[in-house]
Amino acid sequence: MTDQMQRIALAARPEGAPGPEHFSLETGPVPTPGEGEVLVRVHYMSLDPYMRGRMDDAKSYAAPVPIGGTMEAGGVGEVIASNSDAFQPGDFAFGMFGWATHGVQNAKMLRKIDPAHGPITAALGVLGMPGFTGYHGLMEYGRPKAGETLVVAAATGPVGSMVGQIAKMHGLRTVGVAGGADKCALATERFGFDACIDHRAHADAGALRKALAAECPDGIDIYFENVGGKVLEAVIPLMNPFGRIPICGMISWYNAGNLGAGAAGDVTPAPFLWRNILVKFLSVNGFIISNHWDRYPAFLNEVGPKVAAGEIAYVEDIAEGLENAPAAFMGLLQGKNVGKQIVKVI
Amino acid sequence: MTDQMQRIALAARPEGAPGPEHFSLETGPVPTPGEGEVLVRVHYMSLDPYMRGRMDDAKSYAAPVPIGGTMEAGGVGEVIASNSDAFQPGDFAFGMFGWATHGVQNAKMLRKIDPAHGPITAALGVLGMPGFTGYHGLMEYGRPKAGETLVVAAATGPVGSMVGQIAKMHGLRTVGVAGGADKCALATERFGFDACIDHRAHADAGALRKALAAECPDGIDIYFENVGGKVLEAVIPLMNPFGRIPICGMISWYNAGNLGAGAAGDVTPAPFLWRNILVKFLSVNGFIISNHWDRYPAFLNEVGPKVAAGEIAYVEDIAEGLENAPAAFMGLLQGKNVGKQIVKVI
Repeated sequence: MTDQMQRIALAARPEGAPGPEHFSLETGPVPTPGEGEVLVRVHYMSLDPYMRGRMDDAKSYAAPVPIGGTMEAGGVGEVIASNSDAFQPGDFAFGMFGWATHGVQNAKMLRKIDPAHGPITAALGVLGMPGFTGYHGLMEYGRPKAGETLVVAAATGPVGSMVGQIAKMHGLRTVGVAGGADKCALATERFGFDACIDHRAHADAGALRKALAAECPDGIDIYFENVGGKVLEAVIPLMNPFGRIPICGMISWYNAGNLGAGAAGDVTPAPFLWRNILVKFLSVNGFIISNHWDRYPAFLNEVGPKVAAGEIAYVEDIAEGLENAPAAFMGLLQGKNVGKQIVKVI
Repeated sequence: MTDQMQRIALAARPEGAPGPEHFSLETGPVPTPGEGEVLVRVHYMSLDPYMRGRMDDAKSYAAPVPIGGTMEAGGVGEVIASNSDAFQPGDFAFGMFGWATHGVQNAKMLRKIDPAHGPITAALGVLGMPGFTGYHGLMEYGRPKAGETLVVAAATGPVGSMVGQIAKMHGLRTVGVAGGADKCALATERFGFDACIDHRAHADAGALRKALAAECPDGIDIYFENVGGKVLEAVIPLMNPFGRIPICGMISWYNAGNLGAGAAGDVTPAPFLWRNILVKFLSVNGFIISNHWDRYPAFLNEVGPKVAAGEIAYVEDIAEGLENAPAAFMGLLQGKNVGKQIVKVI
């Protein structure tokens, strides 16, 4: 093959917020699939907060992206060459192709997508990793019970909006937190939150706490944690006894360096958290959804039809062109996106 | 009745470490038991770290002791008058009599103790609230598995020594943390810990972490949390994926005020904790054993015979005289006691 492809590589490790200088657009030959492998032309790729962690070399649950390596991402696209019986050219597949126009993966690492079942972008958001993260984290570690109150931040994002909608279906009062009046309106009108607090309208954790307390008259039973920072500090004293806190992320701290002891970026002291966990008998569980893929078919069976029927809403924010992925990613870390951030690659 | 009794009241709320000025020894008439009530002459009372929390008026799982009110404590003693068929004079009973020579309680709030089964002081430690806390917290939230590694601080105390011994019986490697070489020797020789680190020999969390890492070559699967502070900061980066942290206390922070956001007393930032919980998929559970008394009979059935047979060791530190309870309590908060701190009242 003599065709060329493009990819975006990690050019340098950021300290704090990433900028354009930390990415480079590279051109090279389209790779040739080996035995059992499949070549995919990526149509859409996903941008997710976890990718910020891969830019650091701090020890985490996944290896960092090496300097010069392709930024990691899930994507959906069309098979254009296959050395596997499982895929034919023209099939659509989800896989970890990275920030790239093309990718080769072993067929076993790919999931076939049927475009007849709906927009293929759903595999990146509402029916993909973020939606599954919200669903599984809520059901497994949140243990929702009718009549309880749930709080989730980034309420219009693909995780938060799933958490809110599933919790609502289970009879909980759902209170979202989002940045700006427009997102709050989206949270209540589109995603059915009972209330949504604009964290930008509250200067500090204390003010945010008052606003949350007013919307959570019976306290908070489940805080689905994906942001950390000011929201966490506001929420934790409002937790009810025997409350649950699933933790899937902490985006507000991702640009704060490796968060080692003594790191800057937040002043909340550990004793404040720890004491509340003790005196409220809280159950706090960190998780990454990649440890739970065995439960993915059950999720898809339950939630897929609800998405198809319009009972579960989702919103996508689609940037155009691979070359615009870094800017879209920087915006994502600042909450500039509305809904699931996707890049249209082709 | 015209007999007099003594009690120790909360004279003032301490800021930081309590001193003699925060307690007052009061004398008054022995109370008369009402219908269904029992009067007990207290022989031994328990001193426990949780009592420090009752001296503050911060919101917690229990109401604070009011100024002038009797300090709270469990005790064992002899029934000297009874208006209940369940107890006769001469019976021994455990109850929450407070820091006092005598106490009246409804018979339903008392547990009968048979002195023929061993020293009645066991009801305050190894077979009482602290021992049950260690056992239940480990089994319910620690979920020990053979071959894993457990770390617990205050390893010679009544909670830590129970945790270590039960974990050892389940085939774990047990590493204690204690203050001073003598306590470390006690931990390994008497309580069977595989190793014990003297936290006083390590100036900061980093040095303590190195010492722990050397004794935990396969990482830490369970950290039974009862101290917080430097030990927590040392331990948490050593946690293995899917590790568990039951939290029953955090004595190192008890004198740091109410630990609200921004409170002094520790510099560990919350993101450091939170990030480790996320990236290691930790399960962190706060609990207070008083929510779990339904499981106490099962504990007593399993552990009671092991204590009687000498298979589970315990060490008591007995102060003489109610008037010395404040000094013994202040010492307890500084780790001056060796083993379960008890006050002999009679």
